[in-house]
Amino acid sequence: MNSIADVSPDDLEDISLETRRAVAVITLNRPDKLNAWTAAMQRSIRIALAACANDESVRAIVVTGAGRGFCAGADMNLLQGIDPDAGENRELAQANEGESYNWDRSLGPDISEHMGGRFGYMPQIPKPIIAAINGPCAGLGMVFALWCDMRIGAEDMFYTTSFAKRGLIAEHGISWLLPELAGHSAAMDLLFSARRVDAQEAKTIGLLNKTVPTQELVNEAVAYAQEMADTVSPRSVAVMKAQVWKAKFQSLSEAITTGDSEMQKSFATDDFKEGVDHFVQKRAPRFTGR
Amino acid sequence: MNSIADVSPDDLEDISLETRRAVAVITLNRPDKLNAWTAAMQRSIRIALAACANDESVRAIVVTGAGRGFCAGADMNLLQGIDPDAGENRELAQANEGESYNWDRSLGPDISEHMGGRFGYMPQIPKPIIAAINGPCAGLGMVFALWCDMRIGAEDMFYTTSFAKRGLIAEHGISWLLPELAGHSAAMDLLFSARRVDAQEAKTIGLLNKTVPTQELVNEAVAYAQEMADTVSPRSVAVMKAQVWKAKFQSLSEAITTGDSEMQKSFATDDFKEGVDHFVQKRAPRFTGR
Amino acid sequence: MNSIADVSPDDLEDISLETRRAVAVITLNRPDKLNAWTAAMQRSIRIALAACANDESVRAIVVTGAGRGFCAGADMNLLQGIDPDAGENRELAQANEGESYNWDRSLGPDISEHMGGRFGYMPQIPKPIIAAINGPCAGLGMVFALWCDMRIGAEDMFYTTSFAKRGLIAEHGISWLLPELAGHSAAMDLLFSARRVDAQEAKTIGLLNKTVPTQELVNEAVAYAQEMADTVSPRSVAVMKAQVWKAKFQSLSEAITTGDSEMQKSFATDDFKEGVDHFVQKRAPRFTGR
Repeated sequence: MNSIADVSPDDLEDISLETRRAVAVITLNRPDKLNAWTAAMQRSIRIALAACANDESVRAIVVTGAGRGFCAGADMNLLQGIDPDAGENRELAQANEGESYNWDRSLGPDISEHMGGRFGYMPQIPKPIIAAINGPCAGLGMVFALWCDMRIGAEDMFYTTSFAKRGLIAEHGISWLLPELAGHSAAMDLLFSARRVDAQEAKTIGLLNKTVPTQELVNEAVAYAQEMADTVSPRSVAVMKAQVWKAKFQSLSEAITTGDSEMQKSFATDDFKEGVDHFVQKRAPRFTGR
Repeated sequence: MNSIADVSPDDLEDISLETRRAVAVITLNRPDKLNAWTAAMQRSIRIALAACANDESVRAIVVTGAGRGFCAGADMNLLQGIDPDAGENRELAQANEGESYNWDRSLGPDISEHMGGRFGYMPQIPKPIIAAINGPCAGLGMVFALWCDMRIGAEDMFYTTSFAKRGLIAEHGISWLLPELAGHSAAMDLLFSARRVDAQEAKTIGLLNKTVPTQELVNEAVAYAQEMADTVSPRSVAVMKAQVWKAKFQSLSEAITTGDSEMQKSFATDDFKEGVDHFVQKRAPRFTGR
Repeated sequence: MNSIADVSPDDLEDISLETRRAVAVITLNRPDKLNAWTAAMQRSIRIALAACANDESVRAIVVTGAGRGFCAGADMNLLQGIDPDAGENRELAQANEGESYNWDRSLGPDISEHMGGRFGYMPQIPKPIIAAINGPCAGLGMVFALWCDMRIGAEDMFYTTSFAKRGLIAEHGISWLLPELAGHSAAMDLLFSARRVDAQEAKTIGLLNKTVPTQELVNEAVAYAQEMADTVSPRSVAVMKAQVWKAKFQSLSEAITTGDSEMQKSFATDDFKEGVDHFVQKRAPRFTGR
């Protein structure tokens, strides 16, 4: 798929996809189930994100939940249907495989070797993915939100890790991501107690970039993303997203070497020329990503 | 030792050990010396924590200080007695050796290879260790507090690293732990200046999970721990504690693989079944840790 | 150069260097250009910091900007003069080479293998480097500030990464340093959007240790540094600075081993003896760094 227009509504189950000038909005869409996570939802998000990656008109992606919440976690039917002797639950396993979705991965350093599992493709999408979190954001839904690049929270949102209340463990990379984002002490607290963390506390411990009034959530997230579309080079953003993820698995010296190499490449781009020109000419930039 | 009941008061010097429903409380107990650290205290804490690890009735552990403070740091008699030519101070060295205390380490991934030194057994204790910090928490006492899983502070508490005021250096892992918990800039400030950091600032920089009125400190810490005992699987907590520590020395991909493996194991447990059942039946859980 | 007195004003271009009791103050000094970064400035900072490292009377270093800001980033003439086919811009490249400045690197563990690039010598300077940030701190100027050990901000300061507005990327280690200092989510936000971050927000996310009234900035930074000069061992500080940097590339066990080795060495020093003596004698310390 080369653009969002190529995505048929039939390809998308349990989510919806729309665009607002330069920004794609993916909505988890099972509001009567608090958008509880299904294999179909997972597969559909992957299709939608791949289409957004390939669509030149899309500069950033917002993900949010329909109705009263972001995501209640794994659908209870899935959990009840798990056969412990059968290896991974079949339906969810299928969600991880199937068609592989491709997009241009040539911008920035290659990070694919560091990225495994169900959500490991998300840091490889060369555009910002911003979670706009409303109401409950629980269990697997919280894991999904933590794999996004940024998190904006409605005042009515709350996180809960949930796993310890289900007899489960730290799944799909949250053992690594939660301490990275919230710090060690908060990660221990949140994983052990599975207590609710409201928007204000989430902001304090690093799990939200900012909080906004509930009714303004998606508008604010889209406006933030559109501001990027208007003012910064999408090529710069793509390279830097890969650089930051790569740096987590590099020494400081290696990260500097990567930066030196990427800096040289950027000097030869249209966007660098435009970056200097628009500043000197005191006008708004027109970045193309080339 | 298989339970707290097996610990004779004669085994414990400079500390006390009691239980409050499902929670063990270890109290540093040299109040006339602000609980300054001794070799006997260190040995006794190790005995007490091993007994707590083995006691099925204990779900979490609170450590606190008797009297006006948590711990003033190394006892000055120890420091004055150090013979620089004699290798490590003998009495403290003995505290690190001696009888090795055993408990079931089979829950969660093995982290022993990453854990050295005087306090490296603490992350291997498969239960939450919560520091309830009152008054001064200095030097070696601060190091001990940072090795705990969480920190709750009385309003009258303060940290000070102390080392630079004694001509000493960043001891027993604090060079690694303090930046991990408080961030790089705050770690530099606190180690270089050895200044006092009060409860409010400590909360802001990540060195306290929360602050409470001084007279409520132990009650609040115990209540938090008892809430965990009532609502979450102790097996989940044990596995996740090991996962979070393990993840610090893993790539994200490796952490995901560990999580996938632990998730599969959890599907076969009583606690997972109970985790789903109590939710579907809308009742309080009865987790057993099996 | 063995002391600040050996530095001729002719050696320093685009900066100034002065001392206030025990503290050196380096001022970026192109106020009519908001102290935009030049190759001469870079070379001069390196000379000044090496002289500070070698001067026994200097216990800590403050860097600040003359006039209305800290640093506007790379001078636009430099950016306009870049020839993408010529390898790194020649003038800036020369700033990285030339005379190598030496100082005693024997205090603390060796960290040179982890330190590359233009600013990698700064963590190897065995004294605290404190950025006192006024007004704009942008692009390359922000990178320089992040390589310092601590950051104190005037109320009128703001950070902006700038790179995405120039079509550039995360340069000179900021892909590694910014997530380390501000956390992953904030780093993504700041790099992608290149938006302004004011003093209050910078404090919240870990990019300032503290904020002070604008007119008090340098006085406060110098006072903080002088307090260290009066109360802590400069040997302890030098060793701990190297320990904290080293620990970022060590496992916890390795960091403990390094700490044990450095602790043994410290026991044999005058500063350790003085550290105990002044405490027991209840008097102010007189540390010599030996």
